[in-house]
Amino acid sequence: MSMVTHVHRLLPALVLAALCTTANAAGVDLQSLEKQLNDVGARIQRLQDLTEVEIVQHAYGYYVDKAQWRSLSDLFAENATLEIGGKGVFTGKARVFEYMTVGLGPIGPRNNSLIDHQQFQCLPTIHDDGVTAEARCIAFVMSSGGWGHVYYEDDYIKENGVWKFKKLHGPFNMYSGYKLGWVDQVTVNTFPEKFPPWPDLPPTIIYLTYPSYYIEPFHYPNPVTGKPMPAPSPRAGGEAFGR
Amino acid sequence: MSMVTHVHRLLPALVLAALCTTANAAGVDLQSLEKQLNDVGARIQRLQDLTEVEIVQHAYGYYVDKAQWRSLSDLFAENATLEIGGKGVFTGKARVFEYMTVGLGPIGPRNNSLIDHQQFQCLPTIHDDGVTAEARCIAFVMSSGGWGHVYYEDDYIKENGVWKFKKLHGPFNMYSGYKLGWVDQVTVNTFPEKFPPWPDLPPTIIYLTYPSYYIEPFHYPNPVTGKPMPAPSPRAGGEAFGR
Amino acid sequence: MSMVTHVHRLLPALVLAALCTTANAAGVDLQSLEKQLNDVGARIQRLQDLTEVEIVQHAYGYYVDKAQWRSLSDLFAENATLEIGGKGVFTGKARVFEYMTVGLGPIGPRNNSLIDHQQFQCLPTIHDDGVTAEARCIAFVMSSGGWGHVYYEDDYIKENGVWKFKKLHGPFNMYSGYKLGWVDQVTVNTFPEKFPPWPDLPPTIIYLTYPSYYIEPFHYPNPVTGKPMPAPSPRAGGEAFGR
Repeated sequence: MSMVTHVHRLLPALVLAALCTTANAAGVDLQSLEKQLNDVGARIQRLQDLTEVEIVQHAYGYYVDKAQWRSLSDLFAENATLEIGGKGVFTGKARVFEYMTVGLGPIGPRNNSLIDHQQFQCLPTIHDDGVTAEARCIAFVMSSGGWGHVYYEDDYIKENGVWKFKKLHGPFNMYSGYKLGWVDQVTVNTFPEKFPPWPDLPPTIIYLTYPSYYIEPFHYPNPVTGKPMPAPSPRAGGEAFGR
Repeated sequence: MSMVTHVHRLLPALVLAALCTTANAAGVDLQSLEKQLNDVGARIQRLQDLTEVEIVQHAYGYYVDKAQWRSLSDLFAENATLEIGGKGVFTGKARVFEYMTVGLGPIGPRNNSLIDHQQFQCLPTIHDDGVTAEARCIAFVMSSGGWGHVYYEDDYIKENGVWKFKKLHGPFNMYSGYKLGWVDQVTVNTFPEKFPPWPDLPPTIIYLTYPSYYIEPFHYPNPVTGKPMPAPSPRAGGEAFGR
Repeated sequence: MSMVTHVHRLLPALVLAALCTTANAAGVDLQSLEKQLNDVGARIQRLQDLTEVEIVQHAYGYYVDKAQWRSLSDLFAENATLEIGGKGVFTGKARVFEYMTVGLGPIGPRNNSLIDHQQFQCLPTIHDDGVTAEARCIAFVMSSGGWGHVYYEDDYIKENGVWKFKKLHGPFNMYSGYKLGWVDQVTVNTFPEKFPPWPDLPPTIIYLTYPSYYIEPFHYPNPVTGKPMPAPSPRAGGEAFGR
């Protein structure tokens, strides 16, 4: 064989070697990049989910303000539950609508009525499945009836890409008339038979509001220690925990 | 041709084939990765924009609290408009400054004056163009004059990468003195000639506050159904919708 | 040499040339993609950090509400400081706990006590180092003692991936009893010797609350101009700035 032919025989081998190196290198990087992109996508999705869950809660507040009961009940999943104060549990979107229209009055604002439900301070959690979530939030209520302070511990579900209420649980921390001031004219809690409609299930917890007290259990762990919050323990005057 | 030469002839062909496969594979993946990266970048940008729009609104509240009228008017685009309560429309940044200094008093806090404008509950929307936005927010006002509850439906514009107010529209839901309580001593609304300065344009909407009512139209669709909110319909006592 | 052999000699060269082009092209794109991915990762991290810093602040509010002093002091870094109202500076997590338990009462809620500290309106900043942050926030206090309005300018530190308070600074804007109304029955400020425990360091600032005034300096620049907020200048009645 001539020298030239020998070189011919070597070149393709070198090429193949180079090619393999390149192909491998590119292959590995592409794989790693694709994984990184997926991770990044998941992190963005979680941030979007946090935003959207809060928006459902904020919209709820605006709809209460103006008695927009149809818009409000549309925020709930078909088989969602609602439990506000001590009235018991209402199951299903249709009963959420009934709770509002029968219990609180007809759709739409009216003269001499103010029912502002101001929403803020959420601690939202998107679960690992990406389609269920929880949030602890507050409503500061300023109404023609007086003052209110409500904790929410709500569950949300993502159906067809849309976050909805799965469970709204809004125990009162304080409710009071405004005339004598919110320390001297308190409502200790609602109860199932106080006004129609009647609930589907009894209250999940019996408690009194200020001047008694109740602590709605936190779904949210301590954000620094990561430890779950201590479970509530019953005590005279309400529910307490953390001792 | 010898067997060896024949192999020589085949190898480059194999190499080329392998190369093409690799190049194609890499090419397709890179293109897809680049597209994914762009999508990801756009999603992050939207989240950043949501954050920045809220910060403009939050900063506005802090500046009102302490009568920082220069800092406040700097939050507005050059040709922005401002319409608060029933005072009419002020056009341009300079008139925003005039509204504050002439209408509300000199720059800086003073004794016996409290004008806290607490901001929360935003429903922000970044439009597809990425440079215009809207938000519905609330101000809960606690002042030495009394109580207030204000809805905002504000427009924002991004100029040179910076979000600013394009339009601030803050109709009152309730305003009242604190002495007799916010149910018994209400201010039904401001009007253009109530105090100087005079507006550039008349109010865009005539309405009364609590004990009457008005619903500022929602730019934000129902977050679950995606349907636009029902348009307000005039009714005795104010504006109502949703029936 | 035969024509065939000549072609054999050329093919590998063509292959090599093609290969180099492909490898280069892929190499450049991969590098650029990797850089873009890192940028994107950093932007997401900042958004997550903003969320987490707010959650520490929100959790603080919930823990105050129910006198969860252990959970509350766990939100602080080991050598963090706390300065609330005019009581002076408490240094270290143990003294934060002491401030709460000795100064404000035992762990847990009790009858006739309401100490709601509602949190909102944050202006958070994550510093370039990614492990220190600041936020200006508000607490709107509604308690059995009366009303309060508190500005926070807090520092946070990220230790082992977890955001904590590094410094909590909460000067009062207004504090008042609710009986005569929050304009007529004000508390002008606390001071170190008012109630135990005694602070480690004197107050960093002497000021009076409403009907006097004080402006807590803004760490946050004007979000539109980017200019730092004007420094406070002392004036009769408190601190003022922006003139």
